[in-house]
Amino acid sequence: MTSSDPAAEVIAALAASGQSLATAESLTGGMIGAALTAVPGASAVYLGGVVAYATPQKTRLAGVPSEVLDAHGPVSAQAAVAMANGVRIETGADWAIAATGVAGPDPQDGHQPGEVWLGLAEPGGVVRATRHHFAGDRAAVRTATTTAALELLFGALERESPHSATRS
Amino acid sequence: MTSSDPAAEVIAALAASGQSLATAESLTGGMIGAALTAVPGASAVYLGGVVAYATPQKTRLAGVPSEVLDAHGPVSAQAAVAMANGVRIETGADWAIAATGVAGPDPQDGHQPGEVWLGLAEPGGVVRATRHHFAGDRAAVRTATTTAALELLFGALERESPHSATRS
Repeated sequence: MTSSDPAAEVIAALAASGQSLATAESLTGGMIGAALTAVPGASAVYLGGVVAYATPQKTRLAGVPSEVLDAHGPVSAQAAVAMANGVRIETGADWAIAATGVAGPDPQDGHQPGEVWLGLAEPGGVVRATRHHFAGDRAAVRTATTTAALELLFGALERESPHSATRS
Repeated sequence: MTSSDPAAEVIAALAASGQSLATAESLTGGMIGAALTAVPGASAVYLGGVVAYATPQKTRLAGVPSEVLDAHGPVSAQAAVAMANGVRIETGADWAIAATGVAGPDPQDGHQPGEVWLGLAEPGGVVRATRHHFAGDRAAVRTATTTAALELLFGALERESPHSATRS
């Protein structure tokens, strides 16, 4: 899937379906929220979220059980799922997207730069994670993560409401 | 104060003083955190924070007392101070910076686009707010807010530790 502005498409799809969104970001540090709020009218559907950058903040801010971090580490499917689920509950949003991974330049917790997990929490409580490997330097990995998160979300919105989530 | 990369200067100053930082963002939606985490090594000092975009999230995520919002609204010195104070406590950071205001294009709660309040919470619990009026469109106001927040923080770091917070 390619798009000139996936953030605008996500905002339009959510506005069409009358649903809200929250974000839980680690390696992107706020880039996903920044992209969403660059779109005029974002305030109608985007509630906000957390930047759980340091590992302990994934528990403090995003509600990730410390047992999850102890058992699987912050760069894992389980952490991504728990971040998305946690921020969805905290904010009361219908949807939540989460991103955790290694931007580089150094490896982290045994994971190489470019390894990223996205978590997606859907209305009704279904949560899933997808694994990605992005090439390039720190900036490239963070930008690719932001785009992938928005496209993952838009794809799910399209599947749920194919008539309202038309591409602009 | 002008700077080519105020985020890098903030990260360097915090690293030199061994102190940590958190952010609470409204109109910038994550841009301050994104700027800070663009700097390699940010993880040594930047803990994370919240994007309290929708007004009720300023209470849910940033710990702003609802009485503050009821009495003064989200675009106020009191809200900026409470956001900075709240996220500093939630994260356990030494410093916290907060931004709330109107990016536009439409007025909000009786405030015109470009009106911005920054909140700064310092080690020891001192919190203060500064008022700004930024010209330009939505993108210009958000970018100016991000730069002003980082420069406010760097100025305070310089005053506290003039020998470690040298300009790069």
